[in-house]
Amino acid sequence: MSLQSELLTIIKDVPDFPKQGVIFKDINPLLRDPLVMKKVISQMADYARLINIQHIIGIESRGFFFGIPLALELNLPFIAARKKGKLPGSVISESYALEYGTDCIEIQSSALKKGDRYLIIDDVIATGGTASATAKIVNKSGAIVAGFSFLIELTFLNGKDLLLKDNENAQIQSLIKF
Amino acid sequence: MSLQSELLTIIKDVPDFPKQGVIFKDINPLLRDPLVMKKVISQMADYARLINIQHIIGIESRGFFFGIPLALELNLPFIAARKKGKLPGSVISESYALEYGTDCIEIQSSALKKGDRYLIIDDVIATGGTASATAKIVNKSGAIVAGFSFLIELTFLNGKDLLLKDNENAQIQSLIKF
Repeated sequence: MSLQSELLTIIKDVPDFPKQGVIFKDINPLLRDPLVMKKVISQMADYARLINIQHIIGIESRGFFFGIPLALELNLPFIAARKKGKLPGSVISESYALEYGTDCIEIQSSALKKGDRYLIIDDVIATGGTASATAKIVNKSGAIVAGFSFLIELTFLNGKDLLLKDNENAQIQSLIKF
Repeated sequence: MSLQSELLTIIKDVPDFPKQGVIFKDINPLLRDPLVMKKVISQMADYARLINIQHIIGIESRGFFFGIPLALELNLPFIAARKKGKLPGSVISESYALEYGTDCIEIQSSALKKGDRYLIIDDVIATGGTASATAKIVNKSGAIVAGFSFLIELTFLNGKDLLLKDNENAQIQSLIKF
């Protein structure tokens, strides 16, 4: 069975979560399956080696599930992109629009090295708002967004277009698409 | 140099974060050092093998940094203990007191197997409130808390005593103590 088929079996649809009308993709069953998790990390690592990156940014908090083991597999630094107020010291921030209101994501300034190549990782790309804001932080610091990696892409929300608008040379990996 | 000395060099004290009078232990520089991270996971894995566990619970969200790679190292299921409302489906919840007010932590019911042995992991044990609430969820389900593992123990807050009160047969590992 291909990894993609295994993922389609493991990831569960939860209707009306977190609110009415939304079908949530529950990845928690994947976290409980270390053998399939290792295959996921291995596919992300193959892709990351191709695009020649030096740092991995995981987006709070489900991006940590994949970014941390990928960083250890590739012997690269892991950087947490976190919600406002969670990171101590000097940070670079970027606000982004939600359906109602705005949110804000931050990265420690000391983690961003001008000219270095970064991979941004999260569990799901939906509208792309959070990943796009994370990429803007990297760009503001003078570092390079070499690529994005997602476990799941919700294609009908067109998040990829938003990412490529500001990062035309970046690669985008998504292991399964809905 | 011992791992403990390396950790003391890498983990940074940040005064007055997140509020006046608190000295925050910043573990982000550790996440950027994959070689030291691997040594941390290796020490946690040695301990976990000794206490014979079948599942690893990581507490949102810094517990994910250590719980995920540990689960992959040991080929065990990883379970996320998350703040209220983040996990879909049926959950078991437990509230706990904060300095002002209360908070609530949840685990998916499907992740808890009666009689199985669980390790609970987080970056820091301070007063032990969150880890204690997580253990209560495990106990309520009929599963067993075999142990706890923390990167950092703030000994002056006596969190260990709180954990041992309800879990007298559990082991507690902390890699460095302040």
